Amino acid sequence: MSSRETDTPDLQLPSGFRFAGVHSGLKETANDVAMIVCDAPSTAAGVYTQNLVRAASIDWNRQITPCSVIRGVVINSGNANACTGLQGKHDNRQMASTAAESLGCDAEQVLVLSTGVIGHRLAMDCVCPGIQRAVSQAGPEPQDFLAAADGIMTTDRFRKTGSQTVSIGRSSGTITGMAKGAGMIGPNMATLLAVIVTDWYLSPQTADQVLRNAVNASFNCISVEGHTSTNDAVVLLSSSSGTPVREIDQVSQFQDALTETCIGLARQIPSDGEGASHAIEIRVRGTMTDSDADLIARTVANSALVKTAFTGADPNWGRIVSAAGYSGIEFQLDKTSLKLNGHPVFESGQPTPFNAIEVSKDLKLNFDSKIDLCVGSGPGQATHWTSDLTVDYVRLNSEYTT
Amino acid sequence: MSSRETDTPDLQLPSGFRFAGVHSGLKETANDVAMIVCDAPSTAAGVYTQNLVRAASIDWNRQITPCSVIRGVVINSGNANACTGLQGKHDNRQMASTAAESLGCDAEQVLVLSTGVIGHRLAMDCVCPGIQRAVSQAGPEPQDFLAAADGIMTTDRFRKTGSQTVSIGRSSGTITGMAKGAGMIGPNMATLLAVIVTDWYLSPQTADQVLRNAVNASFNCISVEGHTSTNDAVVLLSSSSGTPVREIDQVSQFQDALTETCIGLARQIPSDGEGASHAIEIRVRGTMTDSDADLIARTVANSALVKTAFTGADPNWGRIVSAAGYSGIEFQLDKTSLKLNGHPVFESGQPTPFNAIEVSKDLKLNFDSKIDLCVGSGPGQATHWTSDLTVDYVRLNSEYTT
Repeated sequence: MSSRETDTPDLQLPSGFRFAGVHSGLKETANDVAMIVCDAPSTAAGVYTQNLVRAASIDWNRQITPCSVIRGVVINSGNANACTGLQGKHDNRQMASTAAESLGCDAEQVLVLSTGVIGHRLAMDCVCPGIQRAVSQAGPEPQDFLAAADGIMTTDRFRKTGSQTVSIGRSSGTITGMAKGAGMIGPNMATLLAVIVTDWYLSPQTADQVLRNAVNASFNCISVEGHTSTNDAVVLLSSSSGTPVREIDQVSQFQDALTETCIGLARQIPSDGEGASHAIEIRVRGTMTDSDADLIARTVANSALVKTAFTGADPNWGRIVSAAGYSGIEFQLDKTSLKLNGHPVFESGQPTPFNAIEVSKDLKLNFDSKIDLCVGSGPGQATHWTSDLTVDYVRLNSEYTT
Repeated sequence: MSSRETDTPDLQLPSGFRFAGVHSGLKETANDVAMIVCDAPSTAAGVYTQNLVRAASIDWNRQITPCSVIRGVVINSGNANACTGLQGKHDNRQMASTAAESLGCDAEQVLVLSTGVIGHRLAMDCVCPGIQRAVSQAGPEPQDFLAAADGIMTTDRFRKTGSQTVSIGRSSGTITGMAKGAGMIGPNMATLLAVIVTDWYLSPQTADQVLRNAVNASFNCISVEGHTSTNDAVVLLSSSSGTPVREIDQVSQFQDALTETCIGLARQIPSDGEGASHAIEIRVRGTMTDSDADLIARTVANSALVKTAFTGADPNWGRIVSAAGYSGIEFQLDKTSLKLNGHPVFESGQPTPFNAIEVSKDLKLNFDSKIDLCVGSGPGQATHWTSDLTVDYVRLNSEYTT
């Protein structure tokens, strides 16, 4: 098993932000309200779920970002506030208003994120006092950030954070993020939430663009079971006190660092996939375009038969090749080759003799597994990360809780 | 639990065909080679997998059908003969040749179907003698048909057959089919195979058209885990001795009967889904077009979170609405309503108070479950059938067998 937990001792925090996580009563004992406070109005960009059925929080944030006036982000776990109609919209606004009153700003300067069960009204008598306490407790120390990161978790087994110091020219700044995913409350579906803070200063337009690029190469390339949540959101906050990122080559350097941070956070999510016994990296190459490779990788990642083969450490490669075959992308089978954890099993459209016991042992001993699928000689490539499908996944998601 | 097994006492067989099922040694003890012999050259049409990665048998049949010269169909279970390269093509031709020699016809007058593990060479020393025995034993009685239906099964728990007498004008004829699905050998993926025989005489073009229509409304509307096999095939054989179906209104009546037979066979497949504890019927209406409704139904059917909710008899309707939301079809949430086994749980975009304990009890007691999702006032509608996702599904598909 490889290390799957973030090394929190290395956590760096950008200046300009304070953090808090508190227990408000939505969950039994764990932190369920997190607050990120911006010391001054900050740039914010967001990338949100593509689901037509969206939580109240998503509609709220979409109307606000990108902008440069954000004073805080309030997050609750334990209830998604989705499919809750007009009441849900009202409750979401009240979350923002409550934070805004404590911060001394307008409600429209506060972003809201929610994760948890769908279709239940939020317990406002828990959430609102929780928000007030979180604002008053918010601090700039690593333990404050970690309390906030705890407050956004649902059934996540471990906290997901990442940070790096980024030097551009003679200046230096920090990018730090927290994420959650693969959890459920209720039980309910996995929601992906991530907040990334930086003290590099970005304009709203730049923040929006670099965040979209980074998400496309990271959070959009992971899956647990392929069910798009009503609440998925990735938010980037950039403090106005930092060095501006303006010139094209500066933006490009910042982009690389942000993408790296996002990939680091995103990869932790399938590693913590519900009931996961393997994290699977799927690399596809040889297509005409990157998006063709992406569609093949995504189709393989979503196959229950591929996932269960990894669960059983079974080098049953036919399931992978056949999943690629129904992706809708044209490729030539006689130019297709496949490796499992580096072992060739299928070459140029023909089965290759391999030591099945050895490959199975390799799959059994390693939590991190690799599929390398080459379908031709084109320049397209993509990588996707997923988890396997275990008995525990089914147990977790079929527990009766109504 | 409702009845899920075909009432074989009602089995009617059309004239013009003989059947056999034998054990050749591909499987341990069960029948693994089936033969359908046409007394005279017969019309045949086929609908085959859309997977780019196709078994040798699929490529063979695609070159032959539709036509009016078929003398037999040979089927083996236990090995898919897929991803087996040139050797696989050679072995497939030899299966056809072996049957053709025994029948006294050309290899190109014999269709071949295979189902089982991918990527392994077929044991020809078992299959070929098996085919010879099957041809010599073939008979016109129900027990011969049932032996053949047994010979196409993999891990199917029950045999899937259906038949009906169809009167058009003053004439009468029979449509009878066998199907398999949701099984695995190896283990491997579910392959759907079905053969339908009739003594109504159809031209190749008519046979092709009515089969395509019938498959679209039946076999194309079922799923177990959404993994398209390399070997899926539905074949229709029509004996030349029967009354011709020629006029448009005759074709239309035959079409209705064939579609009914196909739906009857198709619905048995998710009922026998690997490890299934529920068969789920998903009816979607209110879209602009039928194909929009179909895509929503298909997306709901493929959601692991929807499936596991049924496994746990949990009326967790948020998973259904959110799956519809990521189908890619536009609809208005405030015009959306949902019933579970007839109980309203979500109406006009708002949660509806319902007795969760009662609905859960209903889900627990009934193997057959119903989702009714209305997303507007449009004329589009579709029905899809699937199975739930259980601990036994994962166990079956993660058993190490290499």
